[in-house]
Amino acid sequence: MRRSELESQDPAVFAEVAADAEIGELGILTADGWPRVVPLNFAAVGQTVYFHGSQAGEKYDSVQADPRCSFSMVKAYSLIPSQWVAPRHACSATHFFKSVEVRGRCELVDDPDEKASALQALMEKYQPEGGYDPIRADDPIYAKALEVVGVFRVSGSWTAKMKFGSNEPADHRRRWVDKLRDRGEPRDLATADMIAATLEATE
Amino acid sequence: MRRSELESQDPAVFAEVAADAEIGELGILTADGWPRVVPLNFAAVGQTVYFHGSQAGEKYDSVQADPRCSFSMVKAYSLIPSQWVAPRHACSATHFFKSVEVRGRCELVDDPDEKASALQALMEKYQPEGGYDPIRADDPIYAKALEVVGVFRVSGSWTAKMKFGSNEPADHRRRWVDKLRDRGEPRDLATADMIAATLEATE
Repeated sequence: MRRSELESQDPAVFAEVAADAEIGELGILTADGWPRVVPLNFAAVGQTVYFHGSQAGEKYDSVQADPRCSFSMVKAYSLIPSQWVAPRHACSATHFFKSVEVRGRCELVDDPDEKASALQALMEKYQPEGGYDPIRADDPIYAKALEVVGVFRVSGSWTAKMKFGSNEPADHRRRWVDKLRDRGEPRDLATADMIAATLEATE
Repeated sequence: MRRSELESQDPAVFAEVAADAEIGELGILTADGWPRVVPLNFAAVGQTVYFHGSQAGEKYDSVQADPRCSFSMVKAYSLIPSQWVAPRHACSATHFFKSVEVRGRCELVDDPDEKASALQALMEKYQPEGGYDPIRADDPIYAKALEVVGVFRVSGSWTAKMKFGSNEPADHRRRWVDKLRDRGEPRDLATADMIAATLEATE
């Protein structure tokens, strides 16, 4: 762990990052031992990650041959420009975030009920307004699709990280909070609240 | 390649995705051979990816021991709800994107001028409004920082992918274009234009 990031094992942080990260990134090993990173839509059920894909091709072959994987998801907060605390020196520019890294195994899901509930979790994440018949293994309109689609499960140990300047001087953090609340772009108020929480924790 | 994605070697697509992807994901190998995915801020100079970090710790140790890596970056476009083309069946829900995957090597940059220009490229990406002295190796205000920071270079072969429904029925694509232009959320007009281009290519 770099000192600029705080680690967390809070399942609520996992759930928040998994809900907000539109794309996750799966790290696998190709046949020649080279790492490969594949961007994916995904949904979490508890701390298990699910995604779908073809039951053929390099991704499928790679995880069947060696299920060891890493899965990364990020909830990005505001970019912080350097000039908020330094008039000339660029090095204080930074970016705050919450992230989760899973180190585990990627396995094909065989059970039709687990496949259906994983796909339903994906729909609830990406199409929360509904507008479709719920995906159930016993619904004949989904029988063929459930048979053909590959559903993959990633599970293992995980760590969340949170970077909100907790190792930075308190006067910088107070300045960022003020500047963010003043700027008020979409992520700025949430970022200001997270930085303010680091000040409360140390005061 | 899945048929739903078109591959590209167009440097303009690389540059567009690198400029728009706020976070990239580096895939490396840990000492026990497990893949690991690390989210990073990054900048591209041509088709070379640069990021900065500590000259100590697991990421540093891993790439020093084995420089083989993968680097993934994504420019996400609109989410497409299933009900635009199917009243009940969820399976037509999809997500369009452009992505780039680099398969190459991750190496520490030693040359002070290359370190400085990589960090300057990061600043130009993330703080385009300026507000700092340009980072140059011969500027004494940056001498200490340039010595301490680790700058990493990822280079190798790369492939861009674009998914805009090119394998979907033309009547679905026309419907998506209409619905996206009607909805008009931030990414929708750009997504509609990309889908429309697939129709022009096949008509």
